[in-house]
Amino acid sequence: MTETLRSDGRRPDDLREITIERGWSAQAEGSALISFGGTKVLCTASFTNGVPRWMTGKGKGWVTAEYAMLPRSTNSRMDRESVKGRVGGRTHEISRLVGRSLRAVVDMKALGENTIVIDCDVLQADGGTRTAAITGAYVALVDAIEWAREKKFIAQKAKPLIDSVAAVSVGIIDGTPMLDLAYVEDVRAETDMNVVATGRGLFVEVQGTAEGAPFDRRELDSLLDLALAGTASLTAMQQAALQPTVREG
Amino acid sequence: MTETLRSDGRRPDDLREITIERGWSAQAEGSALISFGGTKVLCTASFTNGVPRWMTGKGKGWVTAEYAMLPRSTNSRMDRESVKGRVGGRTHEISRLVGRSLRAVVDMKALGENTIVIDCDVLQADGGTRTAAITGAYVALVDAIEWAREKKFIAQKAKPLIDSVAAVSVGIIDGTPMLDLAYVEDVRAETDMNVVATGRGLFVEVQGTAEGAPFDRRELDSLLDLALAGTASLTAMQQAALQPTVREG
Amino acid sequence: MTETLRSDGRRPDDLREITIERGWSAQAEGSALISFGGTKVLCTASFTNGVPRWMTGKGKGWVTAEYAMLPRSTNSRMDRESVKGRVGGRTHEISRLVGRSLRAVVDMKALGENTIVIDCDVLQADGGTRTAAITGAYVALVDAIEWAREKKFIAQKAKPLIDSVAAVSVGIIDGTPMLDLAYVEDVRAETDMNVVATGRGLFVEVQGTAEGAPFDRRELDSLLDLALAGTASLTAMQQAALQPTVREG
Amino acid sequence: MTETLRSDGRRPDDLREITIERGWSAQAEGSALISFGGTKVLCTASFTNGVPRWMTGKGKGWVTAEYAMLPRSTNSRMDRESVKGRVGGRTHEISRLVGRSLRAVVDMKALGENTIVIDCDVLQADGGTRTAAITGAYVALVDAIEWAREKKFIAQKAKPLIDSVAAVSVGIIDGTPMLDLAYVEDVRAETDMNVVATGRGLFVEVQGTAEGAPFDRRELDSLLDLALAGTASLTAMQQAALQPTVREG
Amino acid sequence: MTETLRSDGRRPDDLREITIERGWSAQAEGSALISFGGTKVLCTASFTNGVPRWMTGKGKGWVTAEYAMLPRSTNSRMDRESVKGRVGGRTHEISRLVGRSLRAVVDMKALGENTIVIDCDVLQADGGTRTAAITGAYVALVDAIEWAREKKFIAQKAKPLIDSVAAVSVGIIDGTPMLDLAYVEDVRAETDMNVVATGRGLFVEVQGTAEGAPFDRRELDSLLDLALAGTASLTAMQQAALQPTVREG
Amino acid sequence: MTETLRSDGRRPDDLREITIERGWSAQAEGSALISFGGTKVLCTASFTNGVPRWMTGKGKGWVTAEYAMLPRSTNSRMDRESVKGRVGGRTHEISRLVGRSLRAVVDMKALGENTIVIDCDVLQADGGTRTAAITGAYVALVDAIEWAREKKFIAQKAKPLIDSVAAVSVGIIDGTPMLDLAYVEDVRAETDMNVVATGRGLFVEVQGTAEGAPFDRRELDSLLDLALAGTASLTAMQQAALQPTVREG
Repeated sequence: MTETLRSDGRRPDDLREITIERGWSAQAEGSALISFGGTKVLCTASFTNGVPRWMTGKGKGWVTAEYAMLPRSTNSRMDRESVKGRVGGRTHEISRLVGRSLRAVVDMKALGENTIVIDCDVLQADGGTRTAAITGAYVALVDAIEWAREKKFIAQKAKPLIDSVAAVSVGIIDGTPMLDLAYVEDVRAETDMNVVATGRGLFVEVQGTAEGAPFDRRELDSLLDLALAGTASLTAMQQAALQPTVREG
Repeated sequence: MTETLRSDGRRPDDLREITIERGWSAQAEGSALISFGGTKVLCTASFTNGVPRWMTGKGKGWVTAEYAMLPRSTNSRMDRESVKGRVGGRTHEISRLVGRSLRAVVDMKALGENTIVIDCDVLQADGGTRTAAITGAYVALVDAIEWAREKKFIAQKAKPLIDSVAAVSVGIIDGTPMLDLAYVEDVRAETDMNVVATGRGLFVEVQGTAEGAPFDRRELDSLLDLALAGTASLTAMQQAALQPTVREG
Repeated sequence: MTETLRSDGRRPDDLREITIERGWSAQAEGSALISFGGTKVLCTASFTNGVPRWMTGKGKGWVTAEYAMLPRSTNSRMDRESVKGRVGGRTHEISRLVGRSLRAVVDMKALGENTIVIDCDVLQADGGTRTAAITGAYVALVDAIEWAREKKFIAQKAKPLIDSVAAVSVGIIDGTPMLDLAYVEDVRAETDMNVVATGRGLFVEVQGTAEGAPFDRRELDSLLDLALAGTASLTAMQQAALQPTVREG
Repeated sequence: MTETLRSDGRRPDDLREITIERGWSAQAEGSALISFGGTKVLCTASFTNGVPRWMTGKGKGWVTAEYAMLPRSTNSRMDRESVKGRVGGRTHEISRLVGRSLRAVVDMKALGENTIVIDCDVLQADGGTRTAAITGAYVALVDAIEWAREKKFIAQKAKPLIDSVAAVSVGIIDGTPMLDLAYVEDVRAETDMNVVATGRGLFVEVQGTAEGAPFDRRELDSLLDLALAGTASLTAMQQAALQPTVREG
Repeated sequence: MTETLRSDGRRPDDLREITIERGWSAQAEGSALISFGGTKVLCTASFTNGVPRWMTGKGKGWVTAEYAMLPRSTNSRMDRESVKGRVGGRTHEISRLVGRSLRAVVDMKALGENTIVIDCDVLQADGGTRTAAITGAYVALVDAIEWAREKKFIAQKAKPLIDSVAAVSVGIIDGTPMLDLAYVEDVRAETDMNVVATGRGLFVEVQGTAEGAPFDRRELDSLLDLALAGTASLTAMQQAALQPTVREG
Repeated sequence: MTETLRSDGRRPDDLREITIERGWSAQAEGSALISFGGTKVLCTASFTNGVPRWMTGKGKGWVTAEYAMLPRSTNSRMDRESVKGRVGGRTHEISRLVGRSLRAVVDMKALGENTIVIDCDVLQADGGTRTAAITGAYVALVDAIEWAREKKFIAQKAKPLIDSVAAVSVGIIDGTPMLDLAYVEDVRAETDMNVVATGRGLFVEVQGTAEGAPFDRRELDSLLDLALAGTASLTAMQQAALQPTVREG
């Protein structure tokens, strides 16, 4: 790979600076304020004993997610969806993606009849908000599960988490595949892909979209390579943030 | 590939019976009633001279799409979104996918300041409704553009279409990659992928989701192979349906 | 009546070409795709064992209907009601009319605690959509009831249907009463009337509206004569479509 | 007609006590508080110079109406439609009926490019709210037009009103046709009809519905006779309420 | 206080003409049509045995209120909130204020598991609609409680009302504090305050807002003096309207 | 005042720990993350050149505000208002209060035809969210105005701010007036008051509510004393946070 430097000085295969402030929220059972460069997402996990009525009695739990952006998280102010009276298509789509991604690493039987709702609120947006949301949500999820174990809502030796999960964006800009696109890069990308992968390196979601020209198989392959390297790094950062496993006060 | 036969007698790499009734609707500028087996989608293209106000004066056109299901297109009746007062997340997501897929093969400059709205209404659903919608929508789009050319809304030698587009679902069932999943297969699939590709074999969208266990790189590759073979067949059927180019009456 | 020929060559007391494709939908318990000339309505009947909570324990059933138009069923595209977030007044009004018309021929005691929802979706509109909807809905209703009888949800000798029901529009154009108005006629009519009648020739609904000048008693009488002749013909076509009573696969 | 006395002592062809308080509202250009027995409807007419944008430049006016019920106008409280976030089907249907009925007696050319919105708010409901609304709305409409004439928004010698309009309900109870049904009668009626007629005795709307058994031609005729007698009486009361034509301050 | 006369001839500390028509509505358990000069509000109290599910089993009742304006209660017509599909901020705010004000004088234990909903519908608006609503709502509330006592839903010797409640607006216009502002005064007021007080002269709500320049402590004090004199007068009028305690027919 | 210590060790007239992180958001023209103890509110000010159409040409600006809570800012998760499809009454009420409070210190002529929207999003709630929102919003407002002055949208010597504004809650608990209530105190307070005051000590809003027993004039006076002392302290902290006037980077 030639040494193309990006506008913020990164090499094509560099992540932005990633920070994970575990336990940021005093109210939630689990939480993390995660930053991917200028993108900041507050992820909270709300644990409730019991499941929605239509799931009762099956011995299985439920994990769902809601994603939203603050109106001035972006460069120019957006109208609030609550004021418009409807949730937009993009919001719905990302909420569903985050929920599916988390459920892929949860053993619902082991979770038991409990519900976890993950809220991912974008406080500041600079590209990659959905991937930051998934990566931070996993940290909040772990803490909510540990909280429930302490409260005896989950059995001491149950293992509701079968793997970890993280996500990153990749894209092709001026013919070069690049990792973790900032907003200025995202709008220029010919192809944009979001990859959700587990700690073991398996795919949970692969969503590639040709924004400009359609892409070929070789380009797809190089993007997947780059993404799996990125999610491996993010997995390591998640594990670091989760040390020690028991959250401090 | 071993000779696993599917519940409807197909081999893993067989499409279902595909039919395309071009010009089904007497009202629309372009239309097609497309069937992928038991899935039937009515696609209409509505051409309007002019673009939304925020696009005026840029010399470019706009193509958008709306997808919806009739309440009893499915095995048990769903509530109407109009009655519920809001469009669901899945509907939004698919509408956006269909729109992006069509825009990927349209040269907006060549379209000029004109708008085409594609409606894809599922009359009967048996898996693969979004892929049938995209494949049928392309046929309706071609006819709407030809209609506009005859009406002189588009220049005689303009080429708004830079390629064709078709879509198909693939999935892994009991470890075997299979093409064009029917509903009973879809619910059993461990991994489900929708691939949108152009007539030249380039990718427009790749959306793979682990419904059960996460999938690895090898599985991803075999699904992509299967999907590209499927979209190539669909491309041929689209071309056949569009002969002769000038729609009869 | 003088021999005024209409724009499509019909005499004043002619119906348009009527077709009824019984069992069009593979999913519904009863269905019919009905055409009144260029008007095409897909009617499906969804049978559910049980009634809404507020009706439970009274030993009576419930029949209701929803009417809607596809956005491009009309000559120029309409916005979807699901996207606008509210059902329009005309839609509501026709849904209520269809429901009342069907309930007029159902013995709710004989139906037992079962619910039938009829969906009438206009695929193509060329005048008379509500009357086509009612006429087709009756066919779908019969099949849903027979389906339920086979499934033993309704007793073998119960007779939930006490009569049949059909509907037609009539109007006065240039002083001449005419039957079954096409769209181009409908917009020119001074008076417009929809009549719903049973197979025995009794009225279920009479809705006459002066679109231009108010009308007198003599005009009203001639419209009613014309309408009853029309519904008698439609009744015969319904009976033909329903032969044999047991639907073929 | 045999001398069947009704629960409130009326004969079958009696109206309830009708009162019309013209000019009840100090704010509106025209208004009337009308009572049909226990039914009380406040009708206001709001005159605006100009028409909606889509009608501009055609030299014609517009008249529309909105009907609504106060939540405790009825015997048990209903939820507010504003709180439910949507206007119900019945409300829509009646609003449309009131608007059509008034437009039938207005010469839109003579009205000029002006808009009149009639609001009919049911303060107390005891059957026949839509017919009281239409009858009272006409009085409010006359005053709004006279107000506009004084303000020179309408030419001195223009005649926007080509006739008057009134409405009444009729129904068959225990086989006897009855005029102007109170609520307790309405729920028992086998057939229910609302008739809107002009001062000259012509029909504007005829809406008959079989609530129980379908009805025959002879029953329809007797109901129409009764209704026309009722609207003739109401017309006389409207004229009395409108004397003198110029409203007192 | 200097003898500044107001546009309607009142002195600064005069209320407008107040009328209370108790029992105006034939349907509600309690009702009052109250006028503060040109402001007319219809207040109805709907009594229901039982409380919302989330309150069941606590032996306590619930009182809530909804405030709304008719579209032409004001000088120019407002769009209906039901048609807009959402309740506006001002409406919500006043509904909440009315509910809190009434609850302040109700002993929920003595009310028992019963619910009272107060509807305050502004028929004509000329300033002070929220204060008229609270003052009239109290009268409706008393009658609904007495109705329930007669029906034995409330024990014979229970005392659900611990005090009475009334409200009035005050404001500073051209430096002079004034009582009970009419609309033309309200728009000119530099400071606007609504005071809700009990019959014993205690405060339930004090809501003062600087519309123009912020106000000082001395101005606040003079407004409170004026308001308490006003609510004392209103309390006397409420007591008079409620004589005799048992409502006539 | 006796030395009653509060659950968190404060004396009755102590504020909680207040922090103001000016410029927290990289995107907004002005911003502050403010904490009142466990209450954290992110305030952003969005400056737009121009005003809404209905205000154009009057030479005056506009300032408005929107308040909202993240779903898990509270102890148990609330449903999102965007998902419910409507903004609740409390949210509306507080948004309106924040907007009015800020407008009280802005000279709209000096602001010129420019719009400032303040968003106050509660990230964590522990009582006093509306008072923290107002206090933080003022800081964001100052910076947005300075930003606009640098960009020449506001004249160099214009003085759009005529005073500063801050807010605090006070309440009576067990008979003792207390300043700046935390959530656990708020739910126990007999009387709850929010006071918005300017830097010069004048009132902008006084909103006192009897949550339990109504309150008397002496209690009202002691609450006002306490509140003015509190807003004076907050004013000093705002001024400190705003040093130096020109925001760093």
